[in-house]
Amino acid sequence: MPDNPRATLRDIAAETGVSVATVSRVLNDHVNVAPRTRDLVLQAVERRKLPADPVGRRTVYVRCPYVLTDYFGLIVSSIAETLKLHGLRLLLDAGESAQHSDALPGLPGEDDVSAAILILPPEDGEALVALSRTGFPFVVVDPRTPPPPDIAAVSAAHFSGARAVADHLVGHGHRDIGVIAGPQEWLASDARLAGHRAALAQAGVLLTPERLRHIEPTTAAGRAAAADLLDRTPRPTAIVCFNDKVAVGTLQAARERGLRVPEDLSIAGFDDIDLSQATDPPLTTVRQPLQEMGRIAVTHLMRVLDGHQPEALHIELATTLVVRDSTAAPGRAGAQAR
Amino acid sequence: MPDNPRATLRDIAAETGVSVATVSRVLNDHVNVAPRTRDLVLQAVERRKLPADPVGRRTVYVRCPYVLTDYFGLIVSSIAETLKLHGLRLLLDAGESAQHSDALPGLPGEDDVSAAILILPPEDGEALVALSRTGFPFVVVDPRTPPPPDIAAVSAAHFSGARAVADHLVGHGHRDIGVIAGPQEWLASDARLAGHRAALAQAGVLLTPERLRHIEPTTAAGRAAAADLLDRTPRPTAIVCFNDKVAVGTLQAARERGLRVPEDLSIAGFDDIDLSQATDPPLTTVRQPLQEMGRIAVTHLMRVLDGHQPEALHIELATTLVVRDSTAAPGRAGAQAR
Repeated sequence: MPDNPRATLRDIAAETGVSVATVSRVLNDHVNVAPRTRDLVLQAVERRKLPADPVGRRTVYVRCPYVLTDYFGLIVSSIAETLKLHGLRLLLDAGESAQHSDALPGLPGEDDVSAAILILPPEDGEALVALSRTGFPFVVVDPRTPPPPDIAAVSAAHFSGARAVADHLVGHGHRDIGVIAGPQEWLASDARLAGHRAALAQAGVLLTPERLRHIEPTTAAGRAAAADLLDRTPRPTAIVCFNDKVAVGTLQAARERGLRVPEDLSIAGFDDIDLSQATDPPLTTVRQPLQEMGRIAVTHLMRVLDGHQPEALHIELATTLVVRDSTAAPGRAGAQAR
Repeated sequence: MPDNPRATLRDIAAETGVSVATVSRVLNDHVNVAPRTRDLVLQAVERRKLPADPVGRRTVYVRCPYVLTDYFGLIVSSIAETLKLHGLRLLLDAGESAQHSDALPGLPGEDDVSAAILILPPEDGEALVALSRTGFPFVVVDPRTPPPPDIAAVSAAHFSGARAVADHLVGHGHRDIGVIAGPQEWLASDARLAGHRAALAQAGVLLTPERLRHIEPTTAAGRAAAADLLDRTPRPTAIVCFNDKVAVGTLQAARERGLRVPEDLSIAGFDDIDLSQATDPPLTTVRQPLQEMGRIAVTHLMRVLDGHQPEALHIELATTLVVRDSTAAPGRAGAQAR
């Protein structure tokens, strides 16, 4: 809407009398800009970081470059409901093809888009910092890599969630636990692994590389990784999966080997999507507050739009350990059942 | 966008010289309008049903007033990707709270919204007809009630899908089949029941009321309805569920009674969401072409936006029977297993 006073490259260029290309160079930290010009542009950007008009109807761009399954769909649904409560419209960019479009640099130039919510953005931190320097307000949900200090971000407490599930298994007497994690470069994998290691270390146990697999979070990949872990001697007495679909694949691999769950093998998941209650046995898992993440992202964004500088830019929401029937004390490990 | 020439109540009022309220009264079939005025307005509406400007950037309002789970999320994702391919933006209204907003009458007045896609709209046919009379282009996906003749709609072939699964069971020798359907007033329930009855009738069998339940499509409701069906004597040898989540509840009810699936009871679902492969045994189900429904809805809408009058306003997409391990010939029915 035209009454939205946030900064655009064009506006800053007009105000400072330099070219749009120069403004862009300054915001992208290029070296070939005169110091005086740089200061001029950066000051103009700062001035733009003022309260947005709270009256005009505003549209928020929400990008979720994945298929909206039970995980992402829940986040987007709660963002949609919360934006509506605030009288904001939601412009959606979703589906895997959205990963290939370079949407961020163009956002500040969209006349009728006031702000953005970026869910698990595929871009690196630099691209987010460049967008932030334009003064365009946005919040990252479920960041893939550690969010730069100045970027508002909402995520689940990966570390404590993974520690809770490892504590639960250690408390049942498990010491030899396999881990099937997500891709190595993901913040979630890294933080969850740290939580897992912390719980194990407290029991005097170290996670060895042969007990760890990094995979894409699908049922098929989980089944293959679990098969690999289960065919080693000695076999682990439990497998922690950092994703419920991966845990379903692990259940399948256990079943194919005649292993009873939880008597011969404990299995835990992560996310608590619908799937985790449909399995036999139902999965012990870590509930992620997906809908709350969406709500908090919008509230966070509203504060930025209203001109507040939030004190805590990075918000972590607590997870909950949900104990069901797929975990128990290690039983007659090695016994072939049924 | 301002260059979109589709009709709005305001434009029609200006063109015909009558008030906006009168235009609205005509379009809503109120009786207290002079016949001459009525003709004037309806003619203006007809003139408006002309090719929209194919150049200006256009925004499509997509409403899916439900949580975006594996079912609705897949439809919305494919709509998002397909709209983007056509250079259209997606304004999303999603989440259960969207059921309570009366969004349709205001749509033609939204200056920057060119068209709409309404997924399983909670409104009755009259509200859709009223919107259609304004000349505002829209397509209904997965209509809840039979779509009025002039309304463009895309749905799955409910009748043939349900007939295929019933044929499959009858072919295995089942004659006493319980059915857990969705709410009675839903088009999907009605059409699937008709398909089920058709397959049974061909084998000389009638569905009796005590073998039929109508419920909301949730796992918990499915479990309760299945318990009710299974606790009768004689027990049905198979249960067809018109929803995969309901089939998961039916599996749970069978397990609680010590019934083996498929030896003691065959269970079939509908939809083929991820859930249906995670159960033990994996579910025989009917795959709905959810992503294809989204793509076809957009293509259909593009034709309307480009000024074509589609020949077939109602499109039904074929479903596929997916046979997995939850169905088989009726075995030693009544045997208590394990």
